[in-house]
Amino acid sequence: MTDLPEVSGLTIGILGGTGDQGKGLARRFALAGHPVLIGSRDAGRAQEAADSIGNGARGAENAAVAAEADIVIVAVPWDGHKATLSALREPLAGKIVVDCVNPLGFDKQGAYALPVEEGSAAQQAAAVLTDSRVVAAFHHVSAVLLLDPAVDKVDLDVLVLGDDREATDTVQALASVIPGVRGVYGGRLRNAHQVEALTANLISINRRYKAHAGVRLTDI
Amino acid sequence: MTDLPEVSGLTIGILGGTGDQGKGLARRFALAGHPVLIGSRDAGRAQEAADSIGNGARGAENAAVAAEADIVIVAVPWDGHKATLSALREPLAGKIVVDCVNPLGFDKQGAYALPVEEGSAAQQAAAVLTDSRVVAAFHHVSAVLLLDPAVDKVDLDVLVLGDDREATDTVQALASVIPGVRGVYGGRLRNAHQVEALTANLISINRRYKAHAGVRLTDI
Repeated sequence: MTDLPEVSGLTIGILGGTGDQGKGLARRFALAGHPVLIGSRDAGRAQEAADSIGNGARGAENAAVAAEADIVIVAVPWDGHKATLSALREPLAGKIVVDCVNPLGFDKQGAYALPVEEGSAAQQAAAVLTDSRVVAAFHHVSAVLLLDPAVDKVDLDVLVLGDDREATDTVQALASVIPGVRGVYGGRLRNAHQVEALTANLISINRRYKAHAGVRLTDI
Repeated sequence: MTDLPEVSGLTIGILGGTGDQGKGLARRFALAGHPVLIGSRDAGRAQEAADSIGNGARGAENAAVAAEADIVIVAVPWDGHKATLSALREPLAGKIVVDCVNPLGFDKQGAYALPVEEGSAAQQAAAVLTDSRVVAAFHHVSAVLLLDPAVDKVDLDVLVLGDDREATDTVQALASVIPGVRGVYGGRLRNAHQVEALTANLISINRRYKAHAGVRLTDI
């Protein structure tokens, strides 16, 4: 593994931080000592989520979080992804924006990948946020494990994708502040679709094996 | 993990078995005691590949392999995938057909997933081979490791996808005869695209980390 940049002290903002995935990540970053801002369309709901996490997390509207945070994680529902980001182009300019959204559909047979015009949620973010440094990561984290106080370590490699080396290195370092987690470079943004879509397979695997499966890469 | 069926003694045929991926799998199945048939358009080249593997492997034309084998692995280049399978509909009828083809393109920036009209190579196989039991598996195996006599164990979970439980169970059992490998159910065939496409990411990972990365699933 390469040397990764120092990320301690960076303020982490999480758009859509009231959902389980966002809240789980917020909790782990707050536990690791990062100032954490939970964003929501509704400042009150954001504050509620922040209170439930504790460890100094604060809540605010998405726009305020986008403006204040050093690194912004996008954990909004796929349904509102494009509209939410389009409204935040300005406060997100120049920042590392980490998309962790999985465009999935569900039916009786389980989860499946939705087609995305831009190729992937991450590429859609990059198309909208032309002045931001878009990275894709944290797709496969289990919200259940992140939120479970009995789980000290999360046994998982976070695949980090992007075309800006300094940005992907930074997000790899950020992933690695969560005990047990390793941030691993996972390729360019054009190869984000399959990483997002693989979440559908993990859902099938979890159902079959009654597990919270994570991905580890061997030999690195 | 569930109990898997007995597969010892089953004859494994490998279409396109003269390529590295097919030859690597052939070698490991032969070492595990399976009768192995290597298929190619050219019987002479098939026999050469079989001779290089030894351990009782035999070579023949693809059609003869399809007719004789109990389980048939499809390891042909994506380029000839549809045509090869269309010509083998009859000998493959009723059999478990395991597609391990990754439809990838390559340019200066590395590998990327090709769009597939049917959704994935495996779904294309299922669309062509309507009387076969199509399973997708063995996408992420490293040919280099499979072919390396110094490698006793391959540190890898093989994701096995399909809609026929008995067939996926059988292929999971087959994957597990390779020392170190575990066959894991990975979802329905409609979720095969992202597993095939993830090979592009593994290629990027291998390049970045100078590795032969494999995938392991945690918590199962």
